[in-house]
Amino acid sequence: MTFEVTILGSSSATPVYNRNPTAQLLNCNEKFYLIDCAEGTQQQLIKFGLKASKIDYVFISHLHGDHYFGLIGLLSSMHLNGRIKPLYIYAPEAIKEILELQFKHSDTHLKYELIYFAIDASKPKIIFENNDVIIETIILNHRIPCTGFKFTEKKRLRKLLVEKLESDNIAIELYPLLKRGVDLELPNGDVLKNSDYTTDSAIPKSYAYCSDTLYDESYFDSIKDCDTLYHEATFLHEMIDRAKETHHTTALQAAQIATIVGAKQLLIGHFSSRYKTLNALLDEAQSEFPNTALALEGNTFQI
Amino acid sequence: MTFEVTILGSSSATPVYNRNPTAQLLNCNEKFYLIDCAEGTQQQLIKFGLKASKIDYVFISHLHGDHYFGLIGLLSSMHLNGRIKPLYIYAPEAIKEILELQFKHSDTHLKYELIYFAIDASKPKIIFENNDVIIETIILNHRIPCTGFKFTEKKRLRKLLVEKLESDNIAIELYPLLKRGVDLELPNGDVLKNSDYTTDSAIPKSYAYCSDTLYDESYFDSIKDCDTLYHEATFLHEMIDRAKETHHTTALQAAQIATIVGAKQLLIGHFSSRYKTLNALLDEAQSEFPNTALALEGNTFQI
Repeated sequence: MTFEVTILGSSSATPVYNRNPTAQLLNCNEKFYLIDCAEGTQQQLIKFGLKASKIDYVFISHLHGDHYFGLIGLLSSMHLNGRIKPLYIYAPEAIKEILELQFKHSDTHLKYELIYFAIDASKPKIIFENNDVIIETIILNHRIPCTGFKFTEKKRLRKLLVEKLESDNIAIELYPLLKRGVDLELPNGDVLKNSDYTTDSAIPKSYAYCSDTLYDESYFDSIKDCDTLYHEATFLHEMIDRAKETHHTTALQAAQIATIVGAKQLLIGHFSSRYKTLNALLDEAQSEFPNTALALEGNTFQI
Repeated sequence: MTFEVTILGSSSATPVYNRNPTAQLLNCNEKFYLIDCAEGTQQQLIKFGLKASKIDYVFISHLHGDHYFGLIGLLSSMHLNGRIKPLYIYAPEAIKEILELQFKHSDTHLKYELIYFAIDASKPKIIFENNDVIIETIILNHRIPCTGFKFTEKKRLRKLLVEKLESDNIAIELYPLLKRGVDLELPNGDVLKNSDYTTDSAIPKSYAYCSDTLYDESYFDSIKDCDTLYHEATFLHEMIDRAKETHHTTALQAAQIATIVGAKQLLIGHFSSRYKTLNALLDEAQSEFPNTALALEGNTFQI
């Protein structure tokens, strides 16, 4: 199953040095989940050959502009480009008022439905579930209510050993039950042992997205053992006082968090405009957690 | 005096083919006036090496998103980049509610003042005047209230013939009066004839910006004899029915308007996403009005 994330923005606060503010596109089994949507996100999608029309779900971590100012434009373009299927928006409650005020004044009547889900940033919750993925909020510690999102694959059905099934002439009608792990007793008394005809499916993976936050142990449980952790790393650790003051994290802290929660891979982003080049941020994180990568525009990471 | 416009966006409705929706930066005597502000305008300013910090005035033609969705991001970045001088916004009244709702929910308290001027789209008016320029609204005919803007240079003071003044030992204290065109009688009875010591300054030029509109003679008086006319030309004339339906103009009509109003130069823009290349639009306009140019991103036109 495809489970990968493409970075659309790596900058904090403002666009700078060809870096755009935050947005990411998660592909989970060819369904597309947009995570945050800074100004210029629709342009980034075009630039990287990604189709906005495939996005069915949008998740907004908080209402600082560098995480959502591109949403109104993206929704308008979807409308102008003929979208008719609904779009689901998981975001702080006020997003609805902000979007609808603008639709009102432009006399825009969307040809598709927007379905809002107001996120409660007070405690972690499962906010979404389908056949592919479960999505839970991560309660971050920022200057305004802010949640990250943990995407965990659903456990897939067991894999059939088709050659063995065929050579033993097992009826196709029984395959769905075998996929579910059931041992079967046939009418003639024979028993089909599930483990003879199937193997376990891959262990479900998880992606934790932590947008803007102070280093705060209270959310570590929510991201424990995630396979890929995206964590903001706005500053170098020499700026720790500034990080605390603005409720952000340093590259070293992001790496420490990855270590503590047992992540397998760390992606860092949300870089301050004070850093024209990013090597120092990467070096700092890798000194603590070697499997760290810069979450840069256009890069796709397998989870 | 510098009087030039730099194009930041040439696309209608949505970004496409590396074309961004509408925004323009007018430089009049090194003061900077932003005209419309689509999503991505701040990125375009960076791309073309233009400083947002120099902009003191913003003019928004109407509240369709492809003309203003970039404003909230631009204002936020100005704040984050330390702006303290006021910014003047000339726009439909609702812009204030739209911006302030978003500042409220991001808990943003701007370090500079926003001074709003609510545009009345019912009749043409002078809405701005300083030592350099007079700005008047143009009442366009679009699906929602929409105004263009005509920027007319102020007549400059007369130019001193300094060599002649110096060789005749005319006191410097008298220069300001001569610049104003006054003939002077000196205490000894001599008369300084202004025309002996000064020449007339250049004839003031004007730039008319017509963003989104149906072809409608009612606004032609407002743009009569402008030096440079920017006019939207969303469609080829073969799409005249679609142009009427959506309250837009064809390239041929834009050129006809330039002819009728006696413009010296025509810039066309706001191109539909149906046109991957723009040669046909330019050819159509030039067949009627030869001195037409495509108003493309990054191009600067002297007025």
